[in-house]
Amino acid sequence: MGTTKPFTRSPCAVANSLDIVGDKWSLLVVRDLLHGKRTYKELADSPERIPTNILADRLRRLEEADIVGSTPYQQRPVRYAYTLTPKGKDLGEVLLAFVRWGKRHIPGTIVLGEARANGGRNERKPPARVRRGRTKREG
Amino acid sequence: MGTTKPFTRSPCAVANSLDIVGDKWSLLVVRDLLHGKRTYKELADSPERIPTNILADRLRRLEEADIVGSTPYQQRPVRYAYTLTPKGKDLGEVLLAFVRWGKRHIPGTIVLGEARANGGRNERKPPARVRRGRTKREG
Repeated sequence: MGTTKPFTRSPCAVANSLDIVGDKWSLLVVRDLLHGKRTYKELADSPERIPTNILADRLRRLEEADIVGSTPYQQRPVRYAYTLTPKGKDLGEVLLAFVRWGKRHIPGTIVLGEARANGGRNERKPPARVRRGRTKREG
Repeated sequence: MGTTKPFTRSPCAVANSLDIVGDKWSLLVVRDLLHGKRTYKELADSPERIPTNILADRLRRLEEADIVGSTPYQQRPVRYAYTLTPKGKDLGEVLLAFVRWGKRHIPGTIVLGEARANGGRNERKPPARVRRGRTKREG
C-alpha cells in the first residue's frame, strides 16, 4: 500500500512518479508483466535484452514501491513469479500514453504485444498458482 | 520532423519513447514548457531545482528529438526561449497519465500547475515574440 514519505524533489505527482519509474527499463518490466510474463527468465527474454543485474535491481525497486509482488513458485533453487499489484496495473494508462505517442511520432515503432505473434510463447500464460491474495481488488 | 533511425533496443513504441524521455528530468522540462515557462531561468527555477548542467543537457536532447524548439530572444548575451513542438505538446497525454497515477497512488502528491498559485509568476507568461514558425501545426 502507499507509504507516506518525504518528497525527494517536490510534491508534484509527475516528479514523484518519475522518481519511481523514470528510467529506461522499469516501465518495460511493467509492460511485460501486463502482457502476462511472470518469471525472471521470461522477463529477461524480452527483445530489449535487459541486463540481468538491471532486471534484478528494477524488480527489487518495483517491489519496494508496491508495484510488483512476488511469490515463490519453486524451491531448490527458489524461483519467484512476479505479478503486478493494483498500483502496478494502473501504470497501464501510462504505458498506453507512451504507446500512442511513440507510434505517432517515432516512425516504425510498433505495439510489442500486438505485433509479437511469438508462437504463443510466454504471453498470457502465467505459471500455475502465482496469483497472490494481497488485495481484494486484484483480478 | 520524425527521423527514421535504427532502433536502439527494439521496435517497441514504449521502449523507443523511453529512449528519448525515460529519465527523471525530461518530462519535468516538458511539463514546465506546457505550463508556459519559456526561458532557461524559468525552467531552472522550478521547485525540483534541476541542476543547470542537467537542464542544458536535457534541452539539447529534447531539441535533437524535435520535442523542443528554441529561438533567441536576446543578443549580447544571446538567450533562448524554448517552446514545445507539436511532437512535444503531444507528450501532454503522457504527463496526464503520470499525474493521474501519481495522485492516485503516491499520497500527498499534487498537480503542480494547479496547486501553485505562485503569485502569477512565470506561469502562462511567455516572453514577447518567442513563437517560432517552425511548423504550421503549432498554435
